Amino acid sequence: MAKLCNVGLIGQGFMGRTHSNAYLKVSKFFLDLPLEPVMHTVFGMKEEKPEVFARRWGWQQYATDWKKVVRDEAIDLVDIVTPNFMHMPPAMAALEAGKPVASEKPIAGTLADARAMVQAAKKAKAKTFVWYNYRRCPAVALAHQLVKAGKIGRIFHVRCIYLQDWGGPDTPLLWRFQKKLAGSGAHGDLNSHIVDLALWLVGPIAEVTGMMKTFVTERTLPGSEESDKVTVDDAAAFLARFANNALGTFEATRFATGRKNGLRFEINGSKGSIVFDLERLNELLFYDSADAQGRHGFRLIQATDASHPYIAAYWPRGHIIGYEHSFINTVVDLLGGIADGTPVHPTFADGFLTQKVLDAVAESAQSNAWVRI
Amino acid sequence: MAKLCNVGLIGQGFMGRTHSNAYLKVSKFFLDLPLEPVMHTVFGMKEEKPEVFARRWGWQQYATDWKKVVRDEAIDLVDIVTPNFMHMPPAMAALEAGKPVASEKPIAGTLADARAMVQAAKKAKAKTFVWYNYRRCPAVALAHQLVKAGKIGRIFHVRCIYLQDWGGPDTPLLWRFQKKLAGSGAHGDLNSHIVDLALWLVGPIAEVTGMMKTFVTERTLPGSEESDKVTVDDAAAFLARFANNALGTFEATRFATGRKNGLRFEINGSKGSIVFDLERLNELLFYDSADAQGRHGFRLIQATDASHPYIAAYWPRGHIIGYEHSFINTVVDLLGGIADGTPVHPTFADGFLTQKVLDAVAESAQSNAWVRI
Amino acid sequence: MAKLCNVGLIGQGFMGRTHSNAYLKVSKFFLDLPLEPVMHTVFGMKEEKPEVFARRWGWQQYATDWKKVVRDEAIDLVDIVTPNFMHMPPAMAALEAGKPVASEKPIAGTLADARAMVQAAKKAKAKTFVWYNYRRCPAVALAHQLVKAGKIGRIFHVRCIYLQDWGGPDTPLLWRFQKKLAGSGAHGDLNSHIVDLALWLVGPIAEVTGMMKTFVTERTLPGSEESDKVTVDDAAAFLARFANNALGTFEATRFATGRKNGLRFEINGSKGSIVFDLERLNELLFYDSADAQGRHGFRLIQATDASHPYIAAYWPRGHIIGYEHSFINTVVDLLGGIADGTPVHPTFADGFLTQKVLDAVAESAQSNAWVRI
Amino acid sequence: MAKLCNVGLIGQGFMGRTHSNAYLKVSKFFLDLPLEPVMHTVFGMKEEKPEVFARRWGWQQYATDWKKVVRDEAIDLVDIVTPNFMHMPPAMAALEAGKPVASEKPIAGTLADARAMVQAAKKAKAKTFVWYNYRRCPAVALAHQLVKAGKIGRIFHVRCIYLQDWGGPDTPLLWRFQKKLAGSGAHGDLNSHIVDLALWLVGPIAEVTGMMKTFVTERTLPGSEESDKVTVDDAAAFLARFANNALGTFEATRFATGRKNGLRFEINGSKGSIVFDLERLNELLFYDSADAQGRHGFRLIQATDASHPYIAAYWPRGHIIGYEHSFINTVVDLLGGIADGTPVHPTFADGFLTQKVLDAVAESAQSNAWVRI
Repeated sequence: MAKLCNVGLIGQGFMGRTHSNAYLKVSKFFLDLPLEPVMHTVFGMKEEKPEVFARRWGWQQYATDWKKVVRDEAIDLVDIVTPNFMHMPPAMAALEAGKPVASEKPIAGTLADARAMVQAAKKAKAKTFVWYNYRRCPAVALAHQLVKAGKIGRIFHVRCIYLQDWGGPDTPLLWRFQKKLAGSGAHGDLNSHIVDLALWLVGPIAEVTGMMKTFVTERTLPGSEESDKVTVDDAAAFLARFANNALGTFEATRFATGRKNGLRFEINGSKGSIVFDLERLNELLFYDSADAQGRHGFRLIQATDASHPYIAAYWPRGHIIGYEHSFINTVVDLLGGIADGTPVHPTFADGFLTQKVLDAVAESAQSNAWVRI
Repeated sequence: MAKLCNVGLIGQGFMGRTHSNAYLKVSKFFLDLPLEPVMHTVFGMKEEKPEVFARRWGWQQYATDWKKVVRDEAIDLVDIVTPNFMHMPPAMAALEAGKPVASEKPIAGTLADARAMVQAAKKAKAKTFVWYNYRRCPAVALAHQLVKAGKIGRIFHVRCIYLQDWGGPDTPLLWRFQKKLAGSGAHGDLNSHIVDLALWLVGPIAEVTGMMKTFVTERTLPGSEESDKVTVDDAAAFLARFANNALGTFEATRFATGRKNGLRFEINGSKGSIVFDLERLNELLFYDSADAQGRHGFRLIQATDASHPYIAAYWPRGHIIGYEHSFINTVVDLLGGIADGTPVHPTFADGFLTQKVLDAVAESAQSNAWVRI
Repeated sequence: MAKLCNVGLIGQGFMGRTHSNAYLKVSKFFLDLPLEPVMHTVFGMKEEKPEVFARRWGWQQYATDWKKVVRDEAIDLVDIVTPNFMHMPPAMAALEAGKPVASEKPIAGTLADARAMVQAAKKAKAKTFVWYNYRRCPAVALAHQLVKAGKIGRIFHVRCIYLQDWGGPDTPLLWRFQKKLAGSGAHGDLNSHIVDLALWLVGPIAEVTGMMKTFVTERTLPGSEESDKVTVDDAAAFLARFANNALGTFEATRFATGRKNGLRFEINGSKGSIVFDLERLNELLFYDSADAQGRHGFRLIQATDASHPYIAAYWPRGHIIGYEHSFINTVVDLLGGIADGTPVHPTFADGFLTQKVLDAVAESAQSNAWVRI
Repeated sequence: MAKLCNVGLIGQGFMGRTHSNAYLKVSKFFLDLPLEPVMHTVFGMKEEKPEVFARRWGWQQYATDWKKVVRDEAIDLVDIVTPNFMHMPPAMAALEAGKPVASEKPIAGTLADARAMVQAAKKAKAKTFVWYNYRRCPAVALAHQLVKAGKIGRIFHVRCIYLQDWGGPDTPLLWRFQKKLAGSGAHGDLNSHIVDLALWLVGPIAEVTGMMKTFVTERTLPGSEESDKVTVDDAAAFLARFANNALGTFEATRFATGRKNGLRFEINGSKGSIVFDLERLNELLFYDSADAQGRHGFRLIQATDASHPYIAAYWPRGHIIGYEHSFINTVVDLLGGIADGTPVHPTFADGFLTQKVLDAVAESAQSNAWVRI
């Protein structure tokens, strides 16, 4: 019988639901988990009615003081899903308490917060993790395998976009449009994902230059007729030079009409290329230069075969999985790392590097010059 | 607080898992269920170790005698996921006990069984259901809405295929290759799905003619070196004339190399066309003749918007769902029908009509002549 | 300098234009033709104004009596593009004159005509050809290479459709809707193409059963308010058993709303599969079972590489060609066969076999029974 | 009968073939041309054997001194297809002679040359044209119609890539890799196309910042074992701010393994989006925000309908055209402009603006700072 791992979830919201769903389901599909997650305590502010969330998702208890949750001796893993500016305080507290801590992405609301978290983690020698969940879509994990196996060869180009379209003028001034709550707009929300993937798949970025834009500068307050200033970007694009000499282009926006959740990346190397599209997340395109003359082509690998990462736990091939399964797969690896003491990437240190790239882009957009990382 | 609905699950296996997963998750996503499903009892034969299955999926208890489960007064819904030949006995018992009963597809191992079940259901005036789950993929439900709203107009053509490729000679003699256990091969397993969809979307089939083929006539017994005869079809294709004069073509096979779960349908009508592909089940192609001159085209509707059937319960648009969600959506409708007394389709009567079509095809493949339904 | 080949074109119309364009361009692209085609004489009825057509396309002269053209000693190749019922007379005359003769598809308006043509060809020992041009799309020729090289293995399934949508009730009673001029409707016009491809790629068909349908039974006469009976089918679908035990499904229609020129075929074999779509005729999908574990997928081969059939004569890779190039490629092979005396397929004998299959389908649609070829 | 327009073609090579093919075919398809092009004289250097080219393509005569061709009174249109550095001299001579002049893209080998050409054109009040042929793919022309009709609304984003893969280390030191002959590498060859399209579809670019890269710095000389320095870029990417506040990203490369001729653009606006891919040049994706709720989606418009630009001249819908037809369509417009005196875009002035953008990018790649146009 597996040992138990009592989870304390700090926060609710959209990510509270994806994490709860993952904890709920992981042991139904993955049978040999070294640790069995227990949905122990969820934190929410009183006005958020955490008792409702707890009941719905099956958390054993709820709390309205996150500090108590973090310090509770029964809690084995602190998992943070609050808005970005609120990642740091519970993370620091968890590290002080010497507990494994996982935070939603991006690692923090500011680079200073992120730096403090990394330093605290180093000192505490604690297990840390940032929830860049797309690494664990089977097709993305397969892409990583292909790169690591040398099937792409020397990488020349990395092309990443993350396009959404919900940012029109009718959308009210949500927390995501406020710098003090969100840190940044499309940049931190969307570019952070593709920067994380690029760093993982290709390696360090040496320097960047970018531009950021706020198309709609004022929005009405939710449930009100008054409006206020938007303090974040609606879109951000940048060029990157990787340490290995690859060229990168990155773009994130909330103004790409018709694109709902359009994260795409393409990597071109001396031996092959790969292409991924989050809206068809079960698929990976792979071009192999080693194919026979006249028979080359991008092949559509449906990453639903038992031989593909994570898939054996689910359904027979061709029975596709969805967005939420990337969270389940993440829990599997996270529990594995906690159990055997090996790091699970992206750690806080990894998340900090992503944040540094994003900050350098923001700086370059101010200075109109390239910025070294 | 919703009333409870104690479910008795008769069987385990692949479909036992999809149903268990659906009962487990439905109330996490759908908040206003009129009945709360309780995972009360699961039946499995002793040698199937139902206690393991029960523990894994969270069934409160297990049983090794299905009759006891069906008769247990605590059970409010009998749900049958045994192999096809074993649908009828527990269904009849449930109907005798006056309980709502749901069966995996196809409705039964033989048409005679199916007929008996429909008659018993009529007599018992009980709620019945057959689990043709693909009706409740959001994109398929959207297709149905478009047809019913008259957006396709008079239907001329229905083109349905269900292609898989696991039937090669290396696959052993599973129960799915044995007529007495499975009833038929690709025909009952795969054609049954597309016939169900066609009857739902287009209406009754008047007559059919078809062909069936067993490419590999002998297979090794699982875990043995001996082999035995295959007694079902590997592939079955047929032509259909619908009562409304539409023409239909249908094909199912386990020998379509490269096609993993390739259920596709296309419907062409006087005002538009729709196309669905199960391997991209979040998408529906829709051609609208009413579009402006020069701007016609098949539009790729990503059925992940809150306005699409079932979707509001899940994630924001663009965050795709998977195969398993069709089962969750089915539970929602099933519980709704039990609660308010309205029929939930496909009922046993609907499932019987599908079975009649399949049987007529098999008869035509013997007689080499068209058979009226 | 290549010897000249004086072409006599019998007819004008759509196919007159595609053939003229091919003769005009072939020697610009293919530099080592053994025979140089000369656009010598075009025939048209006086009221068709053949002088206009001749001037436009660069025919040296025109004639209003096809018999004179066929008998003209200067003519080296008789090429027939008249409506179907008018293929036979000039073909017979050409064979009598001992000249190479090429006819548009289908070979003739009736099977009796076709049989007579084959017999005459045998007697005359003349070079004959039927213009099933799609065989010579580079991607289709590549498909043929893959099949012949054994890359698909034993063939299990052949799935062919040819979908168009111009047959709505507003289309007037063109010659294509009149049996005495066209022979049949979608069946002869569209099914003939996919039957030709299937026979070439897969081999002989042993027996068939089909259905045919006329959705719009009366149409207005062109330029008139009166209407008359439609005497051909609007759609025809059939099942086929190939001599090599493969199963085939075929469907042709003019009522597939949104499908403009949707000829598609898919072939599934023990070692791989291929898929072609005429609306993307530069592309071939190829699934190779020999790919490494976990890296299988349909690969999109863009058949625009110099290593692909016919392509070296045109543009650099990635610069796609169009529908009309299949005719140019055909002329290359046709001239080659005339020059070196080898048969160029499909010959009249091949075209007759296609016609036999189509006729058997029509018979089966009458008798509601399978018909052996 | 149309007046004649005697064309003098300055150069041969790949573009000599595309232009010759266009002049040869245009009057076969477009019946009401105001001017009939006559393939009068082609220039080639003696060692290029222009007599062979002339015979092959049907030029009435050839010349080995381009100056004579330009000055020949019989010549009505000077068309230049020499390498980039050689566009200017014949263009200047033609302008001096007061003749309409068309040049292959980019307008010239250097910005200074381009500026001189524009000034000379202004002075001469002559008709000028730069062959950015992709504007006249029907699907691209349709995209322009949609933008101009306001169907896309205010433009937020422009995303352009042009990916090829022939630049690997085995490719020898062709003229395209030498700055003094080509001006630049992928930047001038490929980015020039997408900049031209962006300026046409979206409007002026206000400022840019970019990066350029030479992955392979030395190459063997063709037919030799010695090697020499590559003096152009292999890849170039840049960010752009448009005058109308839209954000643009651009990338061109010869190192995108698997991408043969991958020119793609996507434009996102407040009312809709459009997407084009040159490898499927008959298709345009169009997303219309005005579609009904729940029925939104990118629709695949196959731009082969008679209602689409240029198409009525060719084949029935669904019978696709190829790369070469964009040149034919260009000739139609060019002749039209010469006949009626209206400008045909892109003129030299337009081509100069494109060149200015490219030069600004090159400058920014040196200075690592944004450059205003």
